[in-house]
Amino acid sequence: MVDIATRVYNHKWKIDPIVRSLIDTDFYKLLMCQSIFRNKPETQVTFTLVNRASDVPLAKLIDEGELREQLDHVRSLSLSRGESTWMRGNTFYGKRQMFRSDFMEWFEKMRLPPYSLERRGDQYELTFEGAWHEVMLWEIPALAILMELRGRAVLHQMRKFELQVLYARAMTKLWEKVERLRQIDNLKIADFGTRRRHSYLWQDWCVQAMVEGLGDKFTGTSNCLIAMKRDLEAVGTNAHELPMVYSALAEDDATLARAPYDVLADWHDEHSGNLRMILPDTYGTEGFLKNAPDWLAGWTGIRIDSGDPVRNAEVAIDWWKSRGEDPTEKLVIFSDGLDVAEMERLHKRFSGRVKVSFGWGTLLTNDFRGLVAGDALAPFSLVCKAQSANGRPTVKLSDNPEKAMGPADEIARYKRVFSVGEQERREVVV
Amino acid sequence: MVDIATRVYNHKWKIDPIVRSLIDTDFYKLLMCQSIFRNKPETQVTFTLVNRASDVPLAKLIDEGELREQLDHVRSLSLSRGESTWMRGNTFYGKRQMFRSDFMEWFEKMRLPPYSLERRGDQYELTFEGAWHEVMLWEIPALAILMELRGRAVLHQMRKFELQVLYARAMTKLWEKVERLRQIDNLKIADFGTRRRHSYLWQDWCVQAMVEGLGDKFTGTSNCLIAMKRDLEAVGTNAHELPMVYSALAEDDATLARAPYDVLADWHDEHSGNLRMILPDTYGTEGFLKNAPDWLAGWTGIRIDSGDPVRNAEVAIDWWKSRGEDPTEKLVIFSDGLDVAEMERLHKRFSGRVKVSFGWGTLLTNDFRGLVAGDALAPFSLVCKAQSANGRPTVKLSDNPEKAMGPADEIARYKRVFSVGEQERREVVV
Repeated sequence: MVDIATRVYNHKWKIDPIVRSLIDTDFYKLLMCQSIFRNKPETQVTFTLVNRASDVPLAKLIDEGELREQLDHVRSLSLSRGESTWMRGNTFYGKRQMFRSDFMEWFEKMRLPPYSLERRGDQYELTFEGAWHEVMLWEIPALAILMELRGRAVLHQMRKFELQVLYARAMTKLWEKVERLRQIDNLKIADFGTRRRHSYLWQDWCVQAMVEGLGDKFTGTSNCLIAMKRDLEAVGTNAHELPMVYSALAEDDATLARAPYDVLADWHDEHSGNLRMILPDTYGTEGFLKNAPDWLAGWTGIRIDSGDPVRNAEVAIDWWKSRGEDPTEKLVIFSDGLDVAEMERLHKRFSGRVKVSFGWGTLLTNDFRGLVAGDALAPFSLVCKAQSANGRPTVKLSDNPEKAMGPADEIARYKRVFSVGEQERREVVV
Repeated sequence: MVDIATRVYNHKWKIDPIVRSLIDTDFYKLLMCQSIFRNKPETQVTFTLVNRASDVPLAKLIDEGELREQLDHVRSLSLSRGESTWMRGNTFYGKRQMFRSDFMEWFEKMRLPPYSLERRGDQYELTFEGAWHEVMLWEIPALAILMELRGRAVLHQMRKFELQVLYARAMTKLWEKVERLRQIDNLKIADFGTRRRHSYLWQDWCVQAMVEGLGDKFTGTSNCLIAMKRDLEAVGTNAHELPMVYSALAEDDATLARAPYDVLADWHDEHSGNLRMILPDTYGTEGFLKNAPDWLAGWTGIRIDSGDPVRNAEVAIDWWKSRGEDPTEKLVIFSDGLDVAEMERLHKRFSGRVKVSFGWGTLLTNDFRGLVAGDALAPFSLVCKAQSANGRPTVKLSDNPEKAMGPADEIARYKRVFSVGEQERREVVV
């Protein structure tokens, strides 16, 4: 029997919304949002969406009207009662009431601020301006919307069985990865793939496949909505935007040099245990660790998100040793463009020497490479970053010059202040 | 929204029936049934199900109670009004009222006769006795039930995502075949895969995938229920049971030698055009054609269902030439254990020399080879054949001694009567 009411209700939708919930976002965005709400509530920022893949002409593929409808839909969202209950009542990283009442009261009333959209050639210029703790919540939905609308443009041309076989192939591809990962003893792996996913439903499928296929080896998802619906751990700690904005706000070079540590000092006050994860690469991993205060060596671990992961993990191990810490007690989370072979290699090299964990992103939730003609569904490198704070430009260097962002003169200044020399160029896949 | 009524209704089913309709069978069974109903209504037969694959211990895999429930369910079926309307009102092979009123009136009231089931070691002995035109209707449902119950036994052990990936892999596998077949110019191909299918739903999926993927190259399905539901051509002509039973009824060697031609003489009276297809291999293709009356050379074509298909098609071409017929006007339907590479090879060799067509069976609707551990879902060779008629044993020789059936002394007699010499042994895959 067809449920007539459901069918008629579905026909009433003007669009098929890509993002349907404010917590269909990464857990670390909510943690950082609360931190900013508490520590930097007055900061005004501009976030910009950047398509690093100039060969993907987003403005040709995606209709501007459709894009606006999707973005407008996100602006219409507010936190539901059940979502609020989950955030207030759930245990995150073993802690109750991770989100404080004043933050939740504000978040329950929050709507995403306006966006600015313009076409520039074959690309869109999409920017968000306003209070940092509001604007930053645009990052994940904006990326997910652009990525999925591009996918929909391709899927729109396909017939029914072509579509079914496309997803059959994608499922098979993911499952074969899961079957390989299952062979790794003591594997710990989480889903970090929200931002550049193929779609929400696909991410949800991937996560459930990991639950069945990997059991305890799967440690959770960064996606709060999926974590809530599937009763999984919500995972994630912090990101580059914190040191980027703190650094932009620095009035002089001495303050700038201290800024990345000031960020973590604030974080240290707020969080403990597995949330004390160092993200060292914003202005170069080696310099960051060398100049780090001793209390940072006491943190639980490090996340490696750019550059040569082997080299950076070795640098971290040497650093812990030099500070009298036992690396085997430390957690190393790899999260940069991972796929199975790379995880096998890294696990083999570091397991036993440190506690190894993986944050598997785009190649978990959007590996449609090779599945359609012209590879028109392959994921590409789309980011949404803080561009300025209180009118001052932000800079990111990372351990890969391909990922650097900011005005050239400011990049030069940051390289000088943080003593960053020659860096190895690495292709950015996703 | 969950449709509560549907959910509750589904819970009320005592079993999940494998065969839910009397026309979930091959079209040629209905054509032959009508012919027998008209020409041999008094003939009593025994049909036996034979598992040629002794390494598949059906009685260990399939619960006897479940098997009985499925067989009993088929006995509870009768022709629905819509099915009767389709048979009476539809055009088959360009002809209206293919099924005559007297036949339809009988068929509308018909229920399948009783079955006899016994366990013998690791196999079941399943036999059907009664009037030929009733018993013969057991063949397809009995085979489909055994094959699917064996599959269900394997699927029962699998978890949710394993199952989804299994079907994803099967879909991908079929689609890759369709994509290869699409490359063949002037391809004509039909689904002949009902009897040893994985399941009804899977066959229905495969047929629809062929419709989308092959367009006009897909000429129809032998499954009447799917033909009706999907608005496709129902295809098929006649099978070995006609010459087998006619031959068993022959009182002496001279009558026996004429029997296979008597069958086709009756068929000639009833059918024209593309239904006039010779099935020459029951007692050896070469002898059959050599001794055939001239009017048979005027038939539309030939179906090649055993032996070396290249050799048999060449024999047919030579035969037509020797009888003054133009082979390029003749239809050759290949239907023996086909898969894509074989069809590519045969099409390449014979296209242009004759009209080539394929009846694709088990490797269309049940190619689960290589998809689960131990190949526990691979199709195997299960047949349900006339064993005796009016108390006299039937014999089948075919062009492959591996497919021969009947008592040894009778096989020897038939070989003598039909001048069948040494035959090439060929592995029977499905």
